[in-house]
Amino acid sequence: MTDRLKAFIESRTFQNFIVGVIIVNAIALGLETSAVAMEMAGPVLIALDRLALSIFVAEIVLKLIVYRLRFFRDAWNVFDFLVVGVTLMPAGEGVSVLRSLRILRVLRLISVVPSLRKVVHALLRAIPGMGSVVALLSLVFYVAAVMATKLFGASFPDWFGTIGASTYTLFQVMTLESWSMGIVRPVMEVYPYAWIFFVLFILLTTFAVLNLFIAIIVDAMAQEHKAEEDETRSELGGEHHAIIAEIRALKEEVAALRREGR
Amino acid sequence: MTDRLKAFIESRTFQNFIVGVIIVNAIALGLETSAVAMEMAGPVLIALDRLALSIFVAEIVLKLIVYRLRFFRDAWNVFDFLVVGVTLMPAGEGVSVLRSLRILRVLRLISVVPSLRKVVHALLRAIPGMGSVVALLSLVFYVAAVMATKLFGASFPDWFGTIGASTYTLFQVMTLESWSMGIVRPVMEVYPYAWIFFVLFILLTTFAVLNLFIAIIVDAMAQEHKAEEDETRSELGGEHHAIIAEIRALKEEVAALRREGR
Amino acid sequence: MTDRLKAFIESRTFQNFIVGVIIVNAIALGLETSAVAMEMAGPVLIALDRLALSIFVAEIVLKLIVYRLRFFRDAWNVFDFLVVGVTLMPAGEGVSVLRSLRILRVLRLISVVPSLRKVVHALLRAIPGMGSVVALLSLVFYVAAVMATKLFGASFPDWFGTIGASTYTLFQVMTLESWSMGIVRPVMEVYPYAWIFFVLFILLTTFAVLNLFIAIIVDAMAQEHKAEEDETRSELGGEHHAIIAEIRALKEEVAALRREGR
Amino acid sequence: MTDRLKAFIESRTFQNFIVGVIIVNAIALGLETSAVAMEMAGPVLIALDRLALSIFVAEIVLKLIVYRLRFFRDAWNVFDFLVVGVTLMPAGEGVSVLRSLRILRVLRLISVVPSLRKVVHALLRAIPGMGSVVALLSLVFYVAAVMATKLFGASFPDWFGTIGASTYTLFQVMTLESWSMGIVRPVMEVYPYAWIFFVLFILLTTFAVLNLFIAIIVDAMAQEHKAEEDETRSELGGEHHAIIAEIRALKEEVAALRREGR
Repeated sequence: MTDRLKAFIESRTFQNFIVGVIIVNAIALGLETSAVAMEMAGPVLIALDRLALSIFVAEIVLKLIVYRLRFFRDAWNVFDFLVVGVTLMPAGEGVSVLRSLRILRVLRLISVVPSLRKVVHALLRAIPGMGSVVALLSLVFYVAAVMATKLFGASFPDWFGTIGASTYTLFQVMTLESWSMGIVRPVMEVYPYAWIFFVLFILLTTFAVLNLFIAIIVDAMAQEHKAEEDETRSELGGEHHAIIAEIRALKEEVAALRREGR
Repeated sequence: MTDRLKAFIESRTFQNFIVGVIIVNAIALGLETSAVAMEMAGPVLIALDRLALSIFVAEIVLKLIVYRLRFFRDAWNVFDFLVVGVTLMPAGEGVSVLRSLRILRVLRLISVVPSLRKVVHALLRAIPGMGSVVALLSLVFYVAAVMATKLFGASFPDWFGTIGASTYTLFQVMTLESWSMGIVRPVMEVYPYAWIFFVLFILLTTFAVLNLFIAIIVDAMAQEHKAEEDETRSELGGEHHAIIAEIRALKEEVAALRREGR
Repeated sequence: MTDRLKAFIESRTFQNFIVGVIIVNAIALGLETSAVAMEMAGPVLIALDRLALSIFVAEIVLKLIVYRLRFFRDAWNVFDFLVVGVTLMPAGEGVSVLRSLRILRVLRLISVVPSLRKVVHALLRAIPGMGSVVALLSLVFYVAAVMATKLFGASFPDWFGTIGASTYTLFQVMTLESWSMGIVRPVMEVYPYAWIFFVLFILLTTFAVLNLFIAIIVDAMAQEHKAEEDETRSELGGEHHAIIAEIRALKEEVAALRREGR
Repeated sequence: MTDRLKAFIESRTFQNFIVGVIIVNAIALGLETSAVAMEMAGPVLIALDRLALSIFVAEIVLKLIVYRLRFFRDAWNVFDFLVVGVTLMPAGEGVSVLRSLRILRVLRLISVVPSLRKVVHALLRAIPGMGSVVALLSLVFYVAAVMATKLFGASFPDWFGTIGASTYTLFQVMTLESWSMGIVRPVMEVYPYAWIFFVLFILLTTFAVLNLFIAIIVDAMAQEHKAEEDETRSELGGEHHAIIAEIRALKEEVAALRREGR
C-alpha cells in the first residue's frame, strides 16, 4: 500500500496540486492584510488558510508514513516541516508575531518548484567559501563593538549603550547608511577623534566584504574555466591517442617488413 | 511600386533624415520645459513637435504599406509604433502625464542608431539568465511585504500600511537608503526586535542581488572564454592533422619499401 | 644647442627637480589654506608659489623651444600647458575660483611620475569600451529629465524646476542618495504614482551602470586570457614542430633504406 | 634547555591553551561593558583580564628567550607584541582610550588560528597591486581637499574649514553618504555651481575605486587561470613526449632493419 501512496505523492499531479494550494494560500494571506478584503470576505479567507494548512499537514503526514525517518534526511523536507509546524504551535492563534509567520509557508514554493530550488542550491554553494572571511568579519565586529561601547557608550547610549546596540550601529555604518551625517558627525562633536575609529572600520570592513565578493566570483569562474579546460585536454588528448595509434600501426608495418627480410 | 518605396525607406538618407527629426524633436521638447523659451518661441516649438509627430506617423504608415503585418514581427517596430501611438491617444492633449510621455519618442534614437541598438541587445541578453533569481527575489519580497504589513502596519501605516506600501519601503531598504536612521530605528522604538527582520532581509536580498550580478559576469566571461578555447582547439587540432598526414606519408613510404622488397 | 637643451630637459636630474618643485608647491598651497600658517609665513608661501610657477613656465618655454609644435602632440604636454596656463590668466589673481585652480598644478605629478601615468593610461583605456553605454545612459537621463521637469517641475521647482535641476536630482537618485526619504516620498505626497517613474529609473540606470562595470571587467580579463592562451598555443605548437621534424627525419631514414635496397 | 622550551611553545597543546585564554579574555572584556555583569562579577572579570594579560606577557617573554631577536622577524610576532604592549603602557590604567584598546588583544586570535591567518594573508596580498591607484586617489583627494577648502571653507567652516575637515567630508561624499541632500544642496545655495566640483569628484573617485576593485578581481583570476593553463600545457606536453618516444622507438626499428639489410 505504501508503494501506491509513494507513487501518488511523487506524481506530477500531486505536486502541481500542492503548488496550486501554496499560491491560493499566498493570495489569501495577502488579502488578509487588506481591511476592505477582510470586511468583504474575511471568513472565506480564514477558511481558505485553514484548508491550506490542513492540506499541508496531511501532505507531511503522508510523507512521514511513506518515508518514515528518512523524511528528515532531505533538508527541504525539514524546511517544509518547520514552516508548517510553526503555525501549529499552541499560542499560534494568539500572538501576532507567530500569526505573521504563517506567510513563511509560501516559501514552500522554493522546495516544490525545481528551478527555484536550483537557484537556492547555487546560492548556498557560495557559502562554504565565505566561511573564514565571515569569521574574520565577525571577529572585527566583536572587537569594534566592544571598543565603541567603551569609548562612546556613555555619551551615546542609544547607539553604543550595549554591545548589541553597537553591533547594530556598526552594521549600519558598514552599509554606509547615514554613517557620517547621522552617526559620526554627532559623535565627533563630543569625541573629535572618533573619525579615526569609524574611517578605519569602514575601510577594513568594506575591503573584507569586497574580497568576500571577489572570492565568490573567482570561484564561480574557476569552476566554469576548469570544465572548459578539461574539455580541451580530453579533446586534444584523444587526438594524441589517434596519433600514437597511427605510429604503432606503422611500427607493426616496419616489424613485419623486418620479419619478411630475414 | 512597393519595391521603390522599400528601397526609399531602407535608404541611408531616409534613416539619417529620421535621426535628424528625432534630434530636432528632442531639442524642441526640451525647450518646451523652459518658460523663457516658451515665451519667445512657444508656437514654433509646438509646431515643430507636431511636424515631427506627423513625420513619424507618415514613416510608420509607409512601413506598414511596405511590410504589411510583417512590420510587427520586429520588436523595434512595435516599440516605435507604441511610442508614437501613445501621443495620438484621444485624451493625449488634455492629460499632463500623457503629454509628458511625448519625450519617450526620443528613445526612438535607440531603434534607429545601430550602435545603441547593439547595446540594448547586449543588456537584454543578460536578462534570461536572471530569470530564476528574479523569481526568487520576488517571492522573498512578497513574503517580506506581507509579514511587514502584519507586524508593523498598525503602528506605521505610511510605511507598512498596505502590501504595496511595504513593498516600496522594502525596496528602499534593499537599496540601503536611510534604512536604519529613516526606517528601522523609528520602528525599533515600538517593536524592539524589528532589527532581526530587517537585518535578515538586507543580508538575504543583497546576497541574492550580488549573485545576480555575479551570474551575469560569469556568463559574459564564459562566452568569451569558450570562443578563445575553441580557437586553441581548432588551431592545435589542425596541427594534429598535419602530424597524422606526415605519419601516413611515412606509412606509404614503408609500404612501398615492403612492396619493393618482395 | 637644442640638442644639449633636449638632453638637459630629458635628463633624470631635471625631472627629479621638477617633481621636487611640484611637491614643495603642493605643500605651500596646502599651508596657504591655514590661517595660522599664513600669519606666520604668508609672504614666504606666496613667494614659493610664484617661484614654482616661474619654474613651470620656464620648463614649458624650454620644451617649446626644443620640440616646437611637436610639443602639443603629446597629450601630457597639453595637460601641463593648460594646468600652468590657467593660473596665468589675467583675472587669475582676482577671482577666487581661478586662484583655487592653482592647486591643479599638483596634478602635474601624474604627468611626471611614470607609474602614476601608467595608472591613468590604464583608466583611460577602459573608456572607449564604455562609449555606447554612456551614450545610452545620457539619452535615458535626458528623456527622464524632460519627463520629470514636466511632471513634477510645477510642485517641486527646487528639485525639478529646469532640465538642469532635474538632471542633477536624477543623478542623486541614481547614486541612491536619499532617493526615497529625501525625494520620492515627498513627491509621492503630491503625485501618488511618482514611485513608478523613480523605481523604473533606478532599475534601468543601475542595471546599465552595472553592465558598464561588467564590460570593463570582461574586457580586462579577456586581454589577460588571450595572452595566456596564445602562450599555450605557441608552446604546444612548438612541440608539434619538434614532432613533425622527428617524423621527417624518420622518413628520410626510410627513404635512405629504400634507396639502399634497390 | 631552550630546545625543550621551543618544543613546548610550538606544541599544539600550548597553542590551544592560548586560543582558550584569548576567548575567555574576549568574553570577560565583553562582559565588562555591561553594568549588570560588572555589579555581579566585576572583580572576577577584572582579575580574569589581568590573568590573561599575565599569560600573554609570559608567552612573549618565553618566545623572546627562545627566538631572541629573530622573534621580531615574523610580522605576526610584532603584531602580538604591539597589541599586548599597548596595555602595559604606564598611563594604560588611567586613560579610557588606552583601556578600550585592550580588546585589540582579541585580534591575536588571527595570529594564532591558521585559517584566519590565511585569510588575512590573502587580503594583504591584494594590496601591492593597489599601490599606484591608491597613490593616484590620494593625490586627487589632496587636490580636491585644498580646492574645497579654498572655495567653500569660508561659508562652511564645519565641513570645509581646514584641509582635514575637507578630506573627511570628501571621503563621506565618495561613499555617497548624504552627499547631495546633506552637503551639496546646502553648498549650492551659496555657490550655485558647486555641483560641477562634486559631481566631477564623485565620477572620478568612484571610477578609480571601481578600477581598484577590477584590478583585484582580474589579478585573482589571472593567477587561477595561469595554474589551470600550466596544467594543460604540462599534461599535453607529457603526451607529446610519449609521442616522440614512440617515434624514436620506430626510428630504432627502422635503423635495425637497415643494419640487417646491409
